[in-house]
Amino acid sequence: MASQAAGRGSGPLDRQLRERAAQVIPGGLWGHQRASALPEGYPQFFRAGDGCRVEDVDGHVYIDLMCSWGPIVLGHRHPGVEAAARAQRDLGDCLDGPGEVLVALAERLVTTLAHADWVTFQKNGTDATTACVMIARAATGRRKVLVARGSYHGSAPWCTPLMAGVTEEDRCHFLPFDYNDPDSLAQAVAQAGDDLAAILVTAFRHDLARDQEMPDPAFAQAARQLSAERGAALIVDDVRAGFRLDLRGSWAALGIAPDLSAHSKAIANGHPLAAVTGRDWLREAATRIYVTGSFWCSASAMAAALATLTELHRVDAPRQLERVGQRLRDGLSRQAQAHGLSLRQSGPPAMPMLLFDDDPGQRLGSLFCQEALRAGVYLHPRHNLFLSLAHTEADIDAVLAATDGALAAAAAARRAGVA
Amino acid sequence: MASQAAGRGSGPLDRQLRERAAQVIPGGLWGHQRASALPEGYPQFFRAGDGCRVEDVDGHVYIDLMCSWGPIVLGHRHPGVEAAARAQRDLGDCLDGPGEVLVALAERLVTTLAHADWVTFQKNGTDATTACVMIARAATGRRKVLVARGSYHGSAPWCTPLMAGVTEEDRCHFLPFDYNDPDSLAQAVAQAGDDLAAILVTAFRHDLARDQEMPDPAFAQAARQLSAERGAALIVDDVRAGFRLDLRGSWAALGIAPDLSAHSKAIANGHPLAAVTGRDWLREAATRIYVTGSFWCSASAMAAALATLTELHRVDAPRQLERVGQRLRDGLSRQAQAHGLSLRQSGPPAMPMLLFDDDPGQRLGSLFCQEALRAGVYLHPRHNLFLSLAHTEADIDAVLAATDGALAAAAAARRAGVA
Repeated sequence: MASQAAGRGSGPLDRQLRERAAQVIPGGLWGHQRASALPEGYPQFFRAGDGCRVEDVDGHVYIDLMCSWGPIVLGHRHPGVEAAARAQRDLGDCLDGPGEVLVALAERLVTTLAHADWVTFQKNGTDATTACVMIARAATGRRKVLVARGSYHGSAPWCTPLMAGVTEEDRCHFLPFDYNDPDSLAQAVAQAGDDLAAILVTAFRHDLARDQEMPDPAFAQAARQLSAERGAALIVDDVRAGFRLDLRGSWAALGIAPDLSAHSKAIANGHPLAAVTGRDWLREAATRIYVTGSFWCSASAMAAALATLTELHRVDAPRQLERVGQRLRDGLSRQAQAHGLSLRQSGPPAMPMLLFDDDPGQRLGSLFCQEALRAGVYLHPRHNLFLSLAHTEADIDAVLAATDGALAAAAAARRAGVA
Repeated sequence: MASQAAGRGSGPLDRQLRERAAQVIPGGLWGHQRASALPEGYPQFFRAGDGCRVEDVDGHVYIDLMCSWGPIVLGHRHPGVEAAARAQRDLGDCLDGPGEVLVALAERLVTTLAHADWVTFQKNGTDATTACVMIARAATGRRKVLVARGSYHGSAPWCTPLMAGVTEEDRCHFLPFDYNDPDSLAQAVAQAGDDLAAILVTAFRHDLARDQEMPDPAFAQAARQLSAERGAALIVDDVRAGFRLDLRGSWAALGIAPDLSAHSKAIANGHPLAAVTGRDWLREAATRIYVTGSFWCSASAMAAALATLTELHRVDAPRQLERVGQRLRDGLSRQAQAHGLSLRQSGPPAMPMLLFDDDPGQRLGSLFCQEALRAGVYLHPRHNLFLSLAHTEADIDAVLAATDGALAAAAAARRAGVA
């Protein structure tokens, strides 16, 4: 980092860039990284990343607990990953066909992911979830796909959370159920009848602004059993959770093998890549669908993924992420109690969600995050956070030093009745 | 290039990798870069690229006339582009928000593209065309989108060329017309009635295995006028042609400003990036749709795009590409005539399509391409080719030295009645 100035938030260069951006980009920015959807004071533009720290364009440095919304699992600019990507790029990246690394990475994923017999690659998580749906439909000759209410599976017309620009027909074959509710799932299966192509579930329940839930074993079993009984595919959307909870796939510990799974985000530590993995009975269908993209065979992101997977295995990433996540959770829990605040911490420690009781609209949560930001910690009031391997115990303690003051400010605001 | 062995085609390492790939990737590979869709002998796996040359995994070097199917416009590993991308990556790439380069690139595109008031970025060409459709629908509150029969707009369910995994409803609001046929377009407009959201056209007609056609001015005018009259958006899909024909946008020379345009491929000389540009009346709608991706704000591809655009302007790329393309066309034309073959060369010289008369299934074309490959030139028998700024006159002459023999072999096969 050029500068080590801790925290603060949006500065003069950030504000100037926002004004310029507002002229040439609708709303200043699209999608999940729009600062306008964050509490006031959050910077929109970033200059650099290093390990578990990011630096905004004004030189303010934050300990990063968003990890670029998931892709960064080893820390920003991990030397081994960057060296592997660069070595590949120095030969060639986007060529007339893939490189040898395509085969090596596909073999690695088939070995790594318990259920996987084969792999295909894409760029976006949405590419992967969409391909899963298409493969399931091609294999079964059926149309209905069951999706949990509130689950995020990407931003194509069939799944994007907002309905602007989406037609009714884009959604007409997607039937809702409630996550972790086997009865609701069984009803949706019955509703689909003999047109059931797939049941699509996120690895755990990680909806926006809601306590996270690990998959209930009975629910997961029901999803597996109902899809098998009906000859439909069980698709686990592991885009967000993948490679943080279990390197064998997030449902492996439940003893459940999905038929298809979608991966992206952490797969290449920030390099653009996605993957679909599947079981043999869907292999032929996967050859019949036509999905492709100009950069899907590019070799440097695959070299990055291979290096990322090697390192994740070497350090037993899930265990270490859980350990630092638990240290954060324990510390926050003690602090919240000391300040008299009811802080709910849900989901896996490696991907925590922080929500306060009696906090509609996350007004208190936003104030807490703003205070933490000023003190040098980048959090999110409504979305799950992400830990990385670059977060050491000392970094977590530095986070806790900042959150103690932020929780004190939040408690004062609550006492004063302003949040 | 490590090795300068000219031509030859799939060697032992390529064949070995194919066998391994067949185990872990359905069909060995997906999409447009599948060697199984190419004539026998084409290599599937590549080791490196340099300027206008690619090297397969067995060390065979080819003059590349596919340019990675379009993305490579300055030549493989262009030093200026790679340096810009690397400098950005050495700071940070995929962060918690975009870098300053996002604003600089958006400003540059608004300045460069004649019709553009604003820009958003994505990863795949399909992301861009899909976003255009969604923006048009959000702006108009209507559903119907007119698309030309045979035009390729990407591989999402609404547009992919194969129907496996696609439902009828994915397509039900897309109505066909014939490219360059104003009457057919008017009929489709009438059919859409007051539900017309957009007319979507490729920059020119570049369908697979078909003579290319530049847009007829009367057709382009009709598309512009009909969409304006109906309050619908004219979308130009400039993904394939963009930044090769006219840096102001491919329809600028026709005096026609689209409402939306989709870009990708050559925009960052092989780095993964796509862009939507639009006019002010669609700006508000663009803020209402929700489309995003984990890597859409990544800064290194944007830095690559900025460097690419700078270089394309500096060298007046369209003029130079046309010049080398015309040299290739003239040479091939002379050779074909000398060998008594009727070779049709269609479309812009920078993106030539080569098809022979009386050649159903491109049997003769495939034989010609196989011979050229053995002699060190990578062509395609059914898809348009791409020139780059790295193709010098000497390189074109080297191509012609190879094609002369390949055309002689094709002529001999035709005389013998085997092609």
